[in-house]
Amino acid sequence: MDDISFAVLGTGGIGRRALEVSQAKQGLTPVAACDRHGIAVDHEGLDVDELLAATEGNVASAADRREAADGRAATDGSREPRADGGGAVKQHGEQAGVVASAQARPTETPIEDTIAASDAVDAVLIALPSLEHDFIPEVAAEFADADYEGVLVDVLKRSRVIGLLDERADVFEESGITFVCGAGATPGFLTGAAALAAQSFVEVEAVDIHWGVGLKSGYEDNRGTVREDIAHLPGFDIESARDLSDDEIEAIVDEHDGVIEFEDMEHADDVLLERAGICDAEDVTVGGVLDVRNDEKPTTTTVDVTGRTFDGERATNTFELGDETSMAANVNGPALGYLKAGVRRNRAGEYGVFGPADLMPGF
Amino acid sequence: MDDISFAVLGTGGIGRRALEVSQAKQGLTPVAACDRHGIAVDHEGLDVDELLAATEGNVASAADRREAADGRAATDGSREPRADGGGAVKQHGEQAGVVASAQARPTETPIEDTIAASDAVDAVLIALPSLEHDFIPEVAAEFADADYEGVLVDVLKRSRVIGLLDERADVFEESGITFVCGAGATPGFLTGAAALAAQSFVEVEAVDIHWGVGLKSGYEDNRGTVREDIAHLPGFDIESARDLSDDEIEAIVDEHDGVIEFEDMEHADDVLLERAGICDAEDVTVGGVLDVRNDEKPTTTTVDVTGRTFDGERATNTFELGDETSMAANVNGPALGYLKAGVRRNRAGEYGVFGPADLMPGF
Repeated sequence: MDDISFAVLGTGGIGRRALEVSQAKQGLTPVAACDRHGIAVDHEGLDVDELLAATEGNVASAADRREAADGRAATDGSREPRADGGGAVKQHGEQAGVVASAQARPTETPIEDTIAASDAVDAVLIALPSLEHDFIPEVAAEFADADYEGVLVDVLKRSRVIGLLDERADVFEESGITFVCGAGATPGFLTGAAALAAQSFVEVEAVDIHWGVGLKSGYEDNRGTVREDIAHLPGFDIESARDLSDDEIEAIVDEHDGVIEFEDMEHADDVLLERAGICDAEDVTVGGVLDVRNDEKPTTTTVDVTGRTFDGERATNTFELGDETSMAANVNGPALGYLKAGVRRNRAGEYGVFGPADLMPGF
Repeated sequence: MDDISFAVLGTGGIGRRALEVSQAKQGLTPVAACDRHGIAVDHEGLDVDELLAATEGNVASAADRREAADGRAATDGSREPRADGGGAVKQHGEQAGVVASAQARPTETPIEDTIAASDAVDAVLIALPSLEHDFIPEVAAEFADADYEGVLVDVLKRSRVIGLLDERADVFEESGITFVCGAGATPGFLTGAAALAAQSFVEVEAVDIHWGVGLKSGYEDNRGTVREDIAHLPGFDIESARDLSDDEIEAIVDEHDGVIEFEDMEHADDVLLERAGICDAEDVTVGGVLDVRNDEKPTTTTVDVTGRTFDGERATNTFELGDETSMAANVNGPALGYLKAGVRRNRAGEYGVFGPADLMPGF
């Protein structure tokens, strides 16, 4: 495959790690990175080391998040991406976020600026905090409005967002956008594993995804992820989690002695497997254990797919991640892998909305 | 995806099971099945139950195989596929092989006849015994010569065959053929699992595939597979295995008390992973244990992928098949899954040679 140039929207934990991982991948050139403060573009390839060093500590604070949410409430359609970056940035330059990089310049229109550079951008990884269901779909719609032709990849989690994307499939197709949704770890990596493991069976009865994440050293960089996870706890939802102060988050973490268990999470693995025809969404369960005080995983990440073979046997195929693989490795490797698959589809003229399972062998 | 019509070349163990498994799959309609004796075509869909019953016991005998080999040695370019069917067929009709089915008619040109029906055939599964390295590539070349446009899928095993296919990639591209090679269990299912498991890593150090097959009740139907496996034993090669009489095969089985272990097999998982950029072929090892006297697997089928993450950890991701899944389930489910993926590529205008790992997220 020819080389692929890509941009990252958001320079928080995921965006920055995606840039870092891409350095170790063949044929991937990061040419743009932006957040709501600015944009860095270099068609020859960004200096990732400089950008990472300059944006270290890009973490959305509660105040920053509320400010962004207020801005969204009054949106006039020109909404800009909020990055995992803002008021809380440990600034290395005079301005917050990506502008701390010597390669960046301030802008109030980062999406438009990214699109303006899009002749040389094959794919855009949307690595923005997703604390409103329609946020990613609306960012994508902005790309379509601007006639972007290429691939959009996101690492969203929530099942209901897939429906919002599917509603916009026509718009993406008209623009020439191949949208690969839910392409992180779960959904994403583990969804793909479930789709593959299903290949032994003619009927899939149950998909059980159980993840373990140890996030001690990555905690600072992944507060947005922790906040999104808390929204899955009983008594919380996306809105209430978004409004938690950092102190309130810490109090919740303390209550659980740093180890939070999740059951029956609304992870889009379910609808992504259903729309690929593999099983009913209700047959998919996702749960996990997050330990923010250790780097060791509190439990091994596994995918169990139970089904019936054509010759009448019932069995369970299993996919298991080594405990030493970090969340960052398991999100960003697959995100870039799916990005590559998306670019291939896009170059062949296949547009619309694709889930991870759509980029695997058919069921 | 729209419905997919497909043909099967060969009505031995794999061809017949593929027809059976397709009955349980959405959107797959078998419209043709042929062997070197005849062809059955029904664009509305074959009556698979009738065809399976009529061709029960389609197993190539040693005499049949030698006859076919002799025919090949004197080939004039009009070579016809030898199916897993011939002299040893437990004939239900007056003629051998697929012609035993009421839906079939004799023909001396089954490939041409399949191509003649190809306006209504999206894909062809090549389920022929592969006891010469160039046999599958030459069958495929015949399809290209006849300007077949569509998908060819095979379940070949040998690494060196991939190179022969790659040499013909231009021919396939000109014809409009999307050739999905090595799309059975290993290579195929387990290659795909390795490609997916690699996504945690920026460098893959080792892929270890270890399979277990219990083949008591499937032995009669899979003599061709057993013969191909014996060719991997020390002291044997494809040529010497091809020339073994059935009695000699039984003697080898007896020597091993029915349980044969294989190490360092020449399975194309290695080159298929290398050509997808995942690791060096030499880092891939394939071995397994075949028990022809029990249906229980003598060992669990596993894929271990060991690599290094971007953040410097070393880990092993594992894919494990439930012991109750038969070889037939793990060959034919993935073969049809890759067939579906191939049709999608073909319809988008992507032609040439694809391995399983090419139909997964990029690395």
